[in-house]
Amino acid sequence: MSPLCQPWPVNEPTFRIATRADLPAVLTLLADDDIGRTRETEASDARYWAAFEAIDADPRNELIVAEAGGEVVGTCQLTFTPSLSRGGSERMTIEAVRIHSGLRGRGLGGDLIRWVLERGRERGCGLAQLTTDKRRADAHRFYDRLGFAASHEGFKINL
Amino acid sequence: MSPLCQPWPVNEPTFRIATRADLPAVLTLLADDDIGRTRETEASDARYWAAFEAIDADPRNELIVAEAGGEVVGTCQLTFTPSLSRGGSERMTIEAVRIHSGLRGRGLGGDLIRWVLERGRERGCGLAQLTTDKRRADAHRFYDRLGFAASHEGFKINL
Repeated sequence: MSPLCQPWPVNEPTFRIATRADLPAVLTLLADDDIGRTRETEASDARYWAAFEAIDADPRNELIVAEAGGEVVGTCQLTFTPSLSRGGSERMTIEAVRIHSGLRGRGLGGDLIRWVLERGRERGCGLAQLTTDKRRADAHRFYDRLGFAASHEGFKINL
Repeated sequence: MSPLCQPWPVNEPTFRIATRADLPAVLTLLADDDIGRTRETEASDARYWAAFEAIDADPRNELIVAEAGGEVVGTCQLTFTPSLSRGGSERMTIEAVRIHSGLRGRGLGGDLIRWVLERGRERGCGLAQLTTDKRRADAHRFYDRLGFAASHEGFKINL
């Protein structure tokens, strides 16, 4: 049964590292977003396949997917950065968090983030961090509820 | 002549990837900071040497130093993250930016950041990003002047 037809909450989501077969679904999730829609294009573009291979081959990067009812319904990317701060432990950066627009508000995003935080703890990371666009007020409340502190300003520049 | 004795601006700073010999000076810079002082400890700790080796061996991480008058007077760390966003280009994250406390306000930090942005461009990165503590008001003006936009909230959580 499609997760879209399931009652709240989403039944038994599972979380794992993405395979090459997941890439079209992940790109669809990245594009299914008011802010991302202006940026992403099609999976037919070889650059996306090359980027997937680069992530997949790097021991400090992981593309994660959430799966429910046999469908990819969420994603994020983890980067583990060796650091001279905080006793030399790695820091975990979470990027490109997306949940299927038809499944938001049903606990899946919280499950995904708690799962990746536990993954970071198991790896010995001292800190997890992310940035989210100042326009995403819902996301700010979401991360606040999960225990994150909005302690930093996030600066970006196009190169 | 020590760069501390030189007239403004700092004469002919050079920027390069750090070597193992630079690590004690870099750790001193990381500790010489109102916020960082509560966190960092001594270079005698083997964990810092292990973290340096991890950064040095990783093709997607670079510890950068600024040198003037034969001394290490600034540092930052660059992380190049393969990404499915923005046409599959890498994004460059800048962390742990520090300038010797006796040399601030003399243009060295701007030179360092412009140098790393050019390094990111040469590598083909589409975006550079960083977060800075909301208490660092001077840093916010600094990055704003360099062309960064404070478009994101930066969330952190200790693991």
